[in-house]
Amino acid sequence: MNAEIIAVGSELLLGQIVNSNAQFISEQLAEMGVNVYYHTSVGDNPERLQHAISVAQERADLLIFTGGLGPTKDDLTKETIAKSLGTTLTLDEDALESIKGYFKKVDREMTPNNEKQALILAGSQVLKNENGMAPGMLLKKDAKAYMLLPGPPSEMKPMFSTYGKQAIQHLLKKKEIIHSRVLRFFGIGEAQLETELEALIDQQTNPTIAPLAGDGEVTLRLTAKHESKDVAITLLDELEIEIMNIVGEYFYGYDQDSLGEVGFKLLKEKGFTLSCAESLTGGLFQAQLASLPGASSILKGGVICYQDEVKKKILSVKESTLEQHTSVSEKCAKELAENVRELLSSDIGISFTGVAGPGSHEGQPAGTVWIGLSMKDQPTKTFHLNLGGGRNANRIRTAKYGWYYLIKELSE
Amino acid sequence: MNAEIIAVGSELLLGQIVNSNAQFISEQLAEMGVNVYYHTSVGDNPERLQHAISVAQERADLLIFTGGLGPTKDDLTKETIAKSLGTTLTLDEDALESIKGYFKKVDREMTPNNEKQALILAGSQVLKNENGMAPGMLLKKDAKAYMLLPGPPSEMKPMFSTYGKQAIQHLLKKKEIIHSRVLRFFGIGEAQLETELEALIDQQTNPTIAPLAGDGEVTLRLTAKHESKDVAITLLDELEIEIMNIVGEYFYGYDQDSLGEVGFKLLKEKGFTLSCAESLTGGLFQAQLASLPGASSILKGGVICYQDEVKKKILSVKESTLEQHTSVSEKCAKELAENVRELLSSDIGISFTGVAGPGSHEGQPAGTVWIGLSMKDQPTKTFHLNLGGGRNANRIRTAKYGWYYLIKELSE
Repeated sequence: MNAEIIAVGSELLLGQIVNSNAQFISEQLAEMGVNVYYHTSVGDNPERLQHAISVAQERADLLIFTGGLGPTKDDLTKETIAKSLGTTLTLDEDALESIKGYFKKVDREMTPNNEKQALILAGSQVLKNENGMAPGMLLKKDAKAYMLLPGPPSEMKPMFSTYGKQAIQHLLKKKEIIHSRVLRFFGIGEAQLETELEALIDQQTNPTIAPLAGDGEVTLRLTAKHESKDVAITLLDELEIEIMNIVGEYFYGYDQDSLGEVGFKLLKEKGFTLSCAESLTGGLFQAQLASLPGASSILKGGVICYQDEVKKKILSVKESTLEQHTSVSEKCAKELAENVRELLSSDIGISFTGVAGPGSHEGQPAGTVWIGLSMKDQPTKTFHLNLGGGRNANRIRTAKYGWYYLIKELSE
Repeated sequence: MNAEIIAVGSELLLGQIVNSNAQFISEQLAEMGVNVYYHTSVGDNPERLQHAISVAQERADLLIFTGGLGPTKDDLTKETIAKSLGTTLTLDEDALESIKGYFKKVDREMTPNNEKQALILAGSQVLKNENGMAPGMLLKKDAKAYMLLPGPPSEMKPMFSTYGKQAIQHLLKKKEIIHSRVLRFFGIGEAQLETELEALIDQQTNPTIAPLAGDGEVTLRLTAKHESKDVAITLLDELEIEIMNIVGEYFYGYDQDSLGEVGFKLLKEKGFTLSCAESLTGGLFQAQLASLPGASSILKGGVICYQDEVKKKILSVKESTLEQHTSVSEKCAKELAENVRELLSSDIGISFTGVAGPGSHEGQPAGTVWIGLSMKDQPTKTFHLNLGGGRNANRIRTAKYGWYYLIKELSE
């Protein structure tokens, strides 16, 4: 089965946004063994969209559309597909109730144009939108399948992951199971990881190993094909062991795990509470933790000690420490981690102090970072980083290293 | 003149990378008044690339290709276009010298497959590659134009900016200047904004108004065309005034301004320092501020008072307040804002307390938020939100509202 992804929206053709939806869906489909042969982007124009549909019908079995399901005049994906297929739109009562409910909750007036979001292609299977108003849908017609998804990634991704993939699985007739597993690594560069695993990568045919680097992390996608799911999984397990023997110390998680999620799980398992003193990261580390449901049982809170007077006044960092070593020092990181742990009465205290950049600070170059990790009844650990990115890359990388060191500590 | 952008590379169809080249080129072309009607991505496959070329020839005058100009077997853009047009490839001596020179410089052996990078479409104009080996090119044939650019953005962007745009300008016969301006709005939904401006949007032909919504914000792109730049700008000014008369209260900035950047500029202008008490946002608000260079003169710091005991212990929220009103209350937001301002000795204190979700807390539904704004010698202001998104959408939206209320306050 071949797929084509058609992104609808003039903002794409005007260069206002990038087509991240096509990347996400393509990656998901690749995991499922579905070939994606073309991506098309077209504007909110009925004639051009119709043309794109005709072209896609000639070269794909599964047409996946993103965008154009909203309430405005420019939103015309459903209407155009209906016209193209000679079918109609019907009202989905559940979707309409859901839309009405949203406006009631936020105490806003529901303008009539919002109702059209509840229309679906006649005979299509609805894909629930748990993060927005417009439902998605899957229509099977004349030996082809048409999937319509919302444009905003925050709505499209969960819908596709939860309902879309499942619907596509039912369309597939293949007997060979494709089974993928992603191994996630941190603290090692892509080139080095590839070099260490070179022999293994070259000789692997099933499973295959596909490296991908981004945001300071490297992932290895292992893909096994076999009629039997159990055999495919065994093949993956065996390859994973071989890889871990070589680069296991940099491994931290699987698939879509983020460093924060893995760290959070470990903290929960051990029942530890955490408090944080953040200077250069400015709240980034705690914000990541707070984004995870259930964080309130783990995160006591913390102090954003951006300016030195706050480090002194609230976190009792010694005047002598700042004078003799400055805030960008091992000593400062140690005091911050210990003192925030004590102040907030948590099991673990973590601190981040350094120079994000651009430009140096207190004589230390941009990218100089100290992380402190204070735990009950243990000597405080400190970690030194020399980062080479821009201001925000350094802040993000620092927060990731915080999680990484926490994970390594909790995994011992 | 209509353009189509064709990105060549299997990594796109496998979802390994996002098509940022199409976004960049589209934005540049929009500025030049060239319509981009389609984007296509296709893999390193001669048959499918040929099909994509045929389709594009039927619907575009200017075909811009990115990718597939490299030395490997997978690089076949030139060869496929040559075959499609019934033309040949010739060796460009300058390009060959350039490639040889590169290998000499980095002291590496030049494998023979690198030579094919010096081949160009017969009769084409070369676009110099100052950041890599493969030259770009522009071929005019049968009333159409074919531009070939490298795939790596670091090579494509400079080539397009320096040589590509110029070459396209020569193709254009228009004397008209295109001038765009983006107006940014917050606190109003896309559907409502369109409803309020419906008459204006419908009757506008020059300038045109194009709405775009995302992440809780709505932007309006105003585009004016005129031979005279001054007249184009006057047309934009006049339309902007009309729009402001209708929905000006929700306006906060222009073009690429973010709420945080606008707020930060205002704080800087007035020389105010800021401290923050964040509960549900967990550090998100301060992290945004810390991402801006120069934040250290504005952001004193703050307290992440995620758990109630931290609200009490560090920010001295009264026990009675939490017992009688809970942390999700106007009273708590007020005390947090006032107390953090006092504790960190800043001009302004801002607080965020509420229920991010999922699920309710202390009897209050997910999305219930209170924001407190404490300023010297003024009664503390509080703001109540009823948000309807998921956990993280609510947190992000709350931080945005914080900036929004701060901006409105500082703009009075």
